[in-house]
Amino acid sequence: MRIIGIDPGLTRCGIGIVTAGAGRRVEFQHVEVLGSPAGAPLPARLHQLGSSIRRLLDGERPDGIALERVFAQQNVASVMGVAQISGVVMYLAEERGIPVAMYTPNEVKSQVTGYGSADKAQVTTMVTRLLGLAAPPKPADAADALALAITHAWHLGRGGSADRQRAAAAPGETPAQRAWREAEAKVGRRRSGPRG
Amino acid sequence: MRIIGIDPGLTRCGIGIVTAGAGRRVEFQHVEVLGSPAGAPLPARLHQLGSSIRRLLDGERPDGIALERVFAQQNVASVMGVAQISGVVMYLAEERGIPVAMYTPNEVKSQVTGYGSADKAQVTTMVTRLLGLAAPPKPADAADALALAITHAWHLGRGGSADRQRAAAAPGETPAQRAWREAEAKVGRRRSGPRG
Repeated sequence: MRIIGIDPGLTRCGIGIVTAGAGRRVEFQHVEVLGSPAGAPLPARLHQLGSSIRRLLDGERPDGIALERVFAQQNVASVMGVAQISGVVMYLAEERGIPVAMYTPNEVKSQVTGYGSADKAQVTTMVTRLLGLAAPPKPADAADALALAITHAWHLGRGGSADRQRAAAAPGETPAQRAWREAEAKVGRRRSGPRG
Repeated sequence: MRIIGIDPGLTRCGIGIVTAGAGRRVEFQHVEVLGSPAGAPLPARLHQLGSSIRRLLDGERPDGIALERVFAQQNVASVMGVAQISGVVMYLAEERGIPVAMYTPNEVKSQVTGYGSADKAQVTTMVTRLLGLAAPPKPADAADALALAITHAWHLGRGGSADRQRAAAAPGETPAQRAWREAEAKVGRRRSGPRG
């Protein structure tokens, strides 16, 4: 199972690719951050990013895409651009028959770090450990994209549907806490768990 | 000059096509309202609408597209879907080298009816008269799409750039009022002007 995580944005669009193995095993494949010039016209920016994503989908032929779900409430200044490039990603994915799963930032944090209010540094730390990377992926958009891909890989590993569209309103804490403990055990975490 | 106006939306996406003649002359070509089923997954909806728009662009080969500019502030419930399909429209347009112009609803109302706070019925009435239609285009999304196309045709007729991206923060009332008077004169309007 080859999963592409996409943290959408016009200025920085994180792309992370992992393969999902048995159980909760995930293997790093690729990470990059696409961008488009802030001063360029919007259609040109969307086309530049969209063309890169199209080539990526055609080259990688992923089994699924995990895309960050945005809400109109958050980051009003950038949310329109995020929604616009997300629309392009979904259009291109559907055109290729690649299922798209959407996760809120809190769901991703909850899965990868064990609790939904983790900060960016904690997400980066856990992604680095879970994938056994030599150095933390930077910028945060890169780590976020990998975290999305890991979240979806685990979702599929639990028998979740590939075209999962709707996030649970309040995901239970138990699976997240289990994920945390399993991740802890796997990566040999040294500091204490979330919130003590 | 062949202009496509697009009033973007997932449930109803208005499409209006006009040709721009000399001065302020505009001629009706086509109007339709695309839609996608509300219960379908978002990627499928975006792909269904995007595919129709792609075929339209390839078939009509317009000189320009006028797209409604949305803000995160307005209609929070539907604004994300509007932004997503707008992103797809811009991606497809840029891929074909077709310039996209964006107008706020107030700019369109101001141009077509003479004042920015006109209601939907007034926009429909003026579009019907300006294009000499036998019956008012319905639903409102159809009239709005034609109003967008007319607005852009007039903008180009005044020597405006085809890839106009940014709306003036507060468009002057004088050109709008002039547009109103000219439209009045042209269509032989019988009732009184805006706000008496």
